[in-house]
Amino acid sequence: MSKKPNRTSRRGFLRTALAGGAAAIASPALTADSNPANLPPNVADWSKTLGEGVAVRTYGKPAKSEAHIGRRDVSWLTASPQSSVSFTPLHEIDGIITPNGLCFERHHSGIAEVNPADYRLMLHGLVDKPLMFTLDDIKRMPRVNRAYFCECAANSGMEWRGAQLNGAQFTHGMVHCVMYTGVPLKVLLNEAGLKPSAKWLLLEGGDAAAMTRSLPLAKALDDALVAYRMNGEMLYPENGYPVRMVLPGWEANIWVKWLRRIEVGDQPWHTREETSKYTDVMADGQARRFTYVMEAKSVITNPSPQAPINHKSGFTVLSGIAWSGRGKIARVDVSIDGGRNWRPAKIDGPAWDKALTRFYYEFDWDGSELLLQSRAMDESGYVQPSKTELRKYRGVNSIYHNNGIQTWHVRSNGEVENVEVG
Amino acid sequence: MSKKPNRTSRRGFLRTALAGGAAAIASPALTADSNPANLPPNVADWSKTLGEGVAVRTYGKPAKSEAHIGRRDVSWLTASPQSSVSFTPLHEIDGIITPNGLCFERHHSGIAEVNPADYRLMLHGLVDKPLMFTLDDIKRMPRVNRAYFCECAANSGMEWRGAQLNGAQFTHGMVHCVMYTGVPLKVLLNEAGLKPSAKWLLLEGGDAAAMTRSLPLAKALDDALVAYRMNGEMLYPENGYPVRMVLPGWEANIWVKWLRRIEVGDQPWHTREETSKYTDVMADGQARRFTYVMEAKSVITNPSPQAPINHKSGFTVLSGIAWSGRGKIARVDVSIDGGRNWRPAKIDGPAWDKALTRFYYEFDWDGSELLLQSRAMDESGYVQPSKTELRKYRGVNSIYHNNGIQTWHVRSNGEVENVEVG
Repeated sequence: MSKKPNRTSRRGFLRTALAGGAAAIASPALTADSNPANLPPNVADWSKTLGEGVAVRTYGKPAKSEAHIGRRDVSWLTASPQSSVSFTPLHEIDGIITPNGLCFERHHSGIAEVNPADYRLMLHGLVDKPLMFTLDDIKRMPRVNRAYFCECAANSGMEWRGAQLNGAQFTHGMVHCVMYTGVPLKVLLNEAGLKPSAKWLLLEGGDAAAMTRSLPLAKALDDALVAYRMNGEMLYPENGYPVRMVLPGWEANIWVKWLRRIEVGDQPWHTREETSKYTDVMADGQARRFTYVMEAKSVITNPSPQAPINHKSGFTVLSGIAWSGRGKIARVDVSIDGGRNWRPAKIDGPAWDKALTRFYYEFDWDGSELLLQSRAMDESGYVQPSKTELRKYRGVNSIYHNNGIQTWHVRSNGEVENVEVG
Repeated sequence: MSKKPNRTSRRGFLRTALAGGAAAIASPALTADSNPANLPPNVADWSKTLGEGVAVRTYGKPAKSEAHIGRRDVSWLTASPQSSVSFTPLHEIDGIITPNGLCFERHHSGIAEVNPADYRLMLHGLVDKPLMFTLDDIKRMPRVNRAYFCECAANSGMEWRGAQLNGAQFTHGMVHCVMYTGVPLKVLLNEAGLKPSAKWLLLEGGDAAAMTRSLPLAKALDDALVAYRMNGEMLYPENGYPVRMVLPGWEANIWVKWLRRIEVGDQPWHTREETSKYTDVMADGQARRFTYVMEAKSVITNPSPQAPINHKSGFTVLSGIAWSGRGKIARVDVSIDGGRNWRPAKIDGPAWDKALTRFYYEFDWDGSELLLQSRAMDESGYVQPSKTELRKYRGVNSIYHNNGIQTWHVRSNGEVENVEVG
């Protein structure tokens, strides 16, 4: 418990404080177990000397003390680092914007290093006028700025068969949310002029995998963006520099990066990425195809296995993110007892259409064991299911589209583990 | 002009295109002067080889081709780089979020390199219970996520006496906008308990300049944040790592960085930074003090002197930012003829309270000379004044709080120059 400070004059307080009198200074009463040894420092070294000047970095980077924070890869698990994944450190960020440097990566043939002067986007097929765009052409066009989540269909995929990965970064880190700047795809299509028979688009990437996916025309004419900026600056190479597709709410695999070609046709192309991969194998072995939409989902990011509780008890804030491919998040509920009781979480900041939404839940922790869960509900009324419910309909053959409720087991020492209940 | 493509079969089109037949491919008709030599590339090198894998960078960075984009400093103009400024490249970003690596810097004794384990924030003075916070204490508290602009009072300061600096980065680049995560200051003050006589706060920075400013209590209890994150991740060192004040709508000088002490008192402290500096010297030599609020302002970022128009005529998008320390931007008008005629710009994306707001204005450029201006109006009804109007009331002795309308002169060759009219 916080100790009551000496009620002396201001000078007296300062004198005591600077002499290291712990009794004079208390940590906030919020922290029932706050450390009475939170002594005021003497004047710190950094307050005594000139620091680095403004010219040192034209492009800034995080403090050296934060250098441990980064994307983590599992390239040991995959055939090569060129066909692998790295994960957003969800437990080390807050709010809804993912910094560009921490956005997860998923490549099929590594990062294409595109020379912007030689970049071209071809638009052809069932159009009146085939078009070829340079990057300057695209940048000259009418544009919009919208924040959207981008989630790999395989996010949480290893959890289908039970709790496996010990950290929100690994179970849920194939999602990020940035503000894109881009040209609505319908502007390009209107420019080319669609033929009456046009029904599907082929999107082709400029990487060596030539990632190709089929896109229904209705989505192309809705909120699809040909994006070239994220959080204000040009896309990073690993996110598709200089141009990628943004298909809000849909699985990331179809957000084709290094976009080089859009062909308009009258039926889907049945590419490798929508036949042998990115389909949902059901319990009977049949595969659902073209399951584009990422359903409502949420996860508690703090505490979580990589971010234990560091205090023994008292005031505690749970923090997490929720999102839905069908629109806005309407509500998030939190349980600390494995789903027996649910309480509404507080949504903070913007709750945008198809964007990450931040929630908090505050409570007094008595130091006992907890089973933490969060459950998102979107504006369509859809409620995030338990993994058990999900398996009833989907079986356990699938890799993709696992949006089941995640459970963290908090021990009384504050450590957190990935578990499954009910 | 765009050439009409050959109306051949799809195969014919592709064959022609890939053979470099310019006639088969046209740039968008949007661009009246589009280059007919926009040939489709052969299969690019980057499509033929594996790229770098996911493990290469745990923290990403911009493409090599964008390495020229960065903050620009004027340390040649100042006594030392430790007491200088670098500018946000406004002409190279879009939307309303400034990437952390490109946020302008202004230091008085360089960048304090704070060890987070030794960081302390002291809260004392006219409070019931003086408090000392560690960084962990602060991170445990209830928090909010809010995007705000941060503008140095001296932004556009050299323009008081006429057009001087040739680029939006230099005339207006001491502004940025990020999403902060922080604890409302009132939470800390409630925790400490204010004495009835409390009226002002002293904010003290941990840098060697020990930057100190006086803050009226009403603002402290309103929207002030003790912030530790920007765009989700921890503050960068040059922006106050690990903790800075965020005082929405107020001049950046009082957003004390590397915050180490808050003292509650009953009157202002009259520090150096609010007496000899950061006051507004009027025409008669008297100085206005405590002019905290940054009034409504705007600037066209594209085109601008560092970002000329690269096409000869045709469809053109003007892009710019507007902001006000008094609330939301209600409207932005644009003139292309030096203020004779005004047309409403289109506001895109969020128009948040005290945040940067993005506007666009689309028109067909006939290739003639232009005088571009933008004029912001905020929700209080305040309209951004011309520099002439501003000087009527304020004279030209001031360095700070120049929110006058900026004029760019576009030549018929697309080059842009900083000029002043009317």
